[in-house]
Amino acid sequence: MTQDKSTSATAFSMNGGDGPYSYAENSSYQRKAIEATQGMISEEKFDVKQMCSSSSPMTFCIADLGCSVGPNTFIAMQNIIDGMKEKNKSQGHSSQIPEFQVFFNDQVLNDFNKLLMSLPLHREYFASAVPGSFYDRLFPKASLHFVYSSSSIHWLSMVPKPVEDMNSPAFNKGRIHYGGAAKEVVDAYLAQFVSDMECFLSARAEELVSRGLMGLLVPTRKKANLILSTVLSHHPFDVLGSCLMDMATKGLLEEEKVDSFNLPLYIPTVEEFEEAMKSNEHFSIERFELLGLKSSSEIVPETLSMHARASMEGRIGEHFGIEILDELFDLFTKKAAELGICNSGNRFDAELFVLLKRK
Amino acid sequence: MTQDKSTSATAFSMNGGDGPYSYAENSSYQRKAIEATQGMISEEKFDVKQMCSSSSPMTFCIADLGCSVGPNTFIAMQNIIDGMKEKNKSQGHSSQIPEFQVFFNDQVLNDFNKLLMSLPLHREYFASAVPGSFYDRLFPKASLHFVYSSSSIHWLSMVPKPVEDMNSPAFNKGRIHYGGAAKEVVDAYLAQFVSDMECFLSARAEELVSRGLMGLLVPTRKKANLILSTVLSHHPFDVLGSCLMDMATKGLLEEEKVDSFNLPLYIPTVEEFEEAMKSNEHFSIERFELLGLKSSSEIVPETLSMHARASMEGRIGEHFGIEILDELFDLFTKKAAELGICNSGNRFDAELFVLLKRK
Repeated sequence: MTQDKSTSATAFSMNGGDGPYSYAENSSYQRKAIEATQGMISEEKFDVKQMCSSSSPMTFCIADLGCSVGPNTFIAMQNIIDGMKEKNKSQGHSSQIPEFQVFFNDQVLNDFNKLLMSLPLHREYFASAVPGSFYDRLFPKASLHFVYSSSSIHWLSMVPKPVEDMNSPAFNKGRIHYGGAAKEVVDAYLAQFVSDMECFLSARAEELVSRGLMGLLVPTRKKANLILSTVLSHHPFDVLGSCLMDMATKGLLEEEKVDSFNLPLYIPTVEEFEEAMKSNEHFSIERFELLGLKSSSEIVPETLSMHARASMEGRIGEHFGIEILDELFDLFTKKAAELGICNSGNRFDAELFVLLKRK
Repeated sequence: MTQDKSTSATAFSMNGGDGPYSYAENSSYQRKAIEATQGMISEEKFDVKQMCSSSSPMTFCIADLGCSVGPNTFIAMQNIIDGMKEKNKSQGHSSQIPEFQVFFNDQVLNDFNKLLMSLPLHREYFASAVPGSFYDRLFPKASLHFVYSSSSIHWLSMVPKPVEDMNSPAFNKGRIHYGGAAKEVVDAYLAQFVSDMECFLSARAEELVSRGLMGLLVPTRKKANLILSTVLSHHPFDVLGSCLMDMATKGLLEEEKVDSFNLPLYIPTVEEFEEAMKSNEHFSIERFELLGLKSSSEIVPETLSMHARASMEGRIGEHFGIEILDELFDLFTKKAAELGICNSGNRFDAELFVLLKRK
């Protein structure tokens, strides 16, 4: 085993702490998605006792991959435990309540101190933190019963290499993402996504017990038939890229710095995601459902800007210097207002919930 | 399950970071003890395959209780893994090498970020961090194969209550520890130690698999027949207490503050420790050996002072205010030199290594 695959993946943990730009204060959207899946898990057919048959005494192990610093992960884990307890009871195994062990995973640079200090005091599980990239193995063979991941696996393990290669047709000049870019750039991003999903599923196939479950929440685009770059041209990341270019034009930063900065993030179409999930022979798709969540109607440019800053400040500060951050996100707020990109339809089309079962 | 038993236990994590007063820079003594036990573990009789029989596929789970921030814990864990691999090989199970999972445990206020960021890059195990007091349950039933703890279980779960009760004969006026104190104070500390060891062994008896091992390194005193307070009167903690009283006399802090401050730490005699280990019916004592380590001869008062600061700065700063720290430890260095307390014989008599087996 080695640690993280790439430094770019390592650097992409969310903002820690609890300041105004922290992830903890800027993740209400993710929370809504978690709540929407709660009912679905409890509707599924599976036997908790059977799943735990390889462990004696009965322990049910859950992992949240890309958990960040809370509190969303605590809500999600409790929901899963409640669902499992309910299921176990309805199947007449009330006398045998399993013990629960929860593994909170994120990149090694995640603020684990904040996560562990804010664990619920009266929790029903044994907690533990696991650092590292979920594109590698993180757990022993057949040691998990339920894997969960929300709004995380659209973050790639690394920026696709051709996108940062000046001699490649996929070199992404003047942009920080594939929105509005040439087809070669989009293709390079998609290829990285497909390769990453293979690694993700192979690792999980080893770690999950037979009949183990994996619930994934992932943002997707619906319109596979349109040219990606058109669909995404008003995506917040593209707007952020154009703000950086504006600052380069004003001489506040070097244009080459923008050329060499790219976000390792790909929002797949529903079809692309389904194909990636089907590519691994060890899983069956038990549920595949578009949640169709919308951001709350109150979202204002300032809020969108804070959300973007929560997830990207670390990486941008590291590449361009932290002194540009305030001006950059002020500019972003103004542009977001001018372009009217604050409704969720322009961010991504739908949150997808997928439930996979290990064969 | 609840989190830590008491706030006092929670507050007692070692200094994080890597500054001159950090635990990482001031723990060479602990490292020597770890190395001394390495050979002993590999000499023991046990069957790795048999120990792992309840887990399929074969996974060997190790926990370090009170791991601090490294690097000692990484050395210790690798030593145990090397020992297990060697044992497995010598027993002809070379084709079946188990996977290893290591749980690094310490108080919730431990600097887990530092620990996880400094994990060896090419490690042979899946790593995870577990926050909480080891006087409570930390892991699911029968989920561990080897528990290790070095220089940690002499830290009590809390300051004995009578010691801070003005109306008790055990009220510890003008001192911060039991050295040089009345018999009632010593008795209160011993009672707390006995009670804590019961909790510790009960929790581990649940968590270890049948035939699972527990290796403990603990500082002990030999001279059970002498009055404790005499033996310990030149212990660094007592010297630190007298430095605090000197500062109170000078008006630099309030004497009541010293009265209400006590270290939750008890160094048992070999006999007391043996009795505590025998009190739990679920364990057999496989090995019980005094290592007789000495601190390296180069130890100077400044080094002793830095060691003391590494382990106690947090707690003292919280109670008295951080502004007293520099003066306090300067004074400590001077007193340590005057009293000549820098040889290890005056700190504790011997490091004890105990290997227990879960029946």
